[in-house]
Amino acid sequence: MTPKTKTLDELFHDTLKDIYFAEKKILTTLPKMEKAAQAPELKKAFAKHKMETEGQVARLEKVFAAIDKKPQAKTCDAIVGITDEGAEIMKEYKGSPALDAGLLAAAQAVEHYEISRYGTLKTWANELGLGDAVRLLQQTLDEEKKTDATLTEIALSVVNQEAEAA
Amino acid sequence: MTPKTKTLDELFHDTLKDIYFAEKKILTTLPKMEKAAQAPELKKAFAKHKMETEGQVARLEKVFAAIDKKPQAKTCDAIVGITDEGAEIMKEYKGSPALDAGLLAAAQAVEHYEISRYGTLKTWANELGLGDAVRLLQQTLDEEKKTDATLTEIALSVVNQEAEAA
Repeated sequence: MTPKTKTLDELFHDTLKDIYFAEKKILTTLPKMEKAAQAPELKKAFAKHKMETEGQVARLEKVFAAIDKKPQAKTCDAIVGITDEGAEIMKEYKGSPALDAGLLAAAQAVEHYEISRYGTLKTWANELGLGDAVRLLQQTLDEEKKTDATLTEIALSVVNQEAEAA
Repeated sequence: MTPKTKTLDELFHDTLKDIYFAEKKILTTLPKMEKAAQAPELKKAFAKHKMETEGQVARLEKVFAAIDKKPQAKTCDAIVGITDEGAEIMKEYKGSPALDAGLLAAAQAVEHYEISRYGTLKTWANELGLGDAVRLLQQTLDEEKKTDATLTEIALSVVNQEAEAA
């Protein structure tokens, strides 16, 4: 591999491996967050997002197929760092009134990472003329934005009141 | 410190230390990205955002003052992971046609992390009745969103054409 010749299709493929790793990491993290969450609305949101994430992994596998590649994961340092912070919150705030607020913040950091990645991948798929990939990536991008909005609603309605009431 | 009693004001303070670390890390990263960037528009965007980031650090110091705390940084694993990915792009795509596209993706991942953190901090400041902090955090949040939009414009207008033309 000569770095000097790396083009957009290779960058697209590399970044696809990165988000594929990230989604699989998120799949293992969400059940822990669901278990840790105190507010029923938040537990439910994490459970729902786990199901969605399974669909997003399947969609990524279709994107790999659209560029004639096998699904492959490549360690994504960013999601490792972001989920490590979430794990730290679960440990440091266990049993604390502010736990749910911390979990929500961690989950929204994950969502924003995904929104940034899917937005980028969709733009590149468009430039590369990969129509099927554009549609698949747009579907997931819409889901991630919706999840982020749901988490914001929960943060405003439930969690901060809990933390204040403590 | 007894974890069981950690409340929203402590979570706010902890997260403030996290983003203070992140902004300082970003300040050291932006000149490297500016140097690496090929498109003049992108170089200019990184230079401008470095100046903005200096203002954002100063604003965070005012938020610390608003809660009677000294500015303090706490290692933020998320930004370390995100900027490590950016460093990998700079190394792997050095001299490649897709370098600018990769740099833009890395920068947008950083922006989205910040958007998520400032959104969360602003919500908490509001819940905690910290009016000055709300205003300061909102100013930075607006700047980060604007920077993200600028990066999207550059990605659409310049970089992908470069990558395709290679």
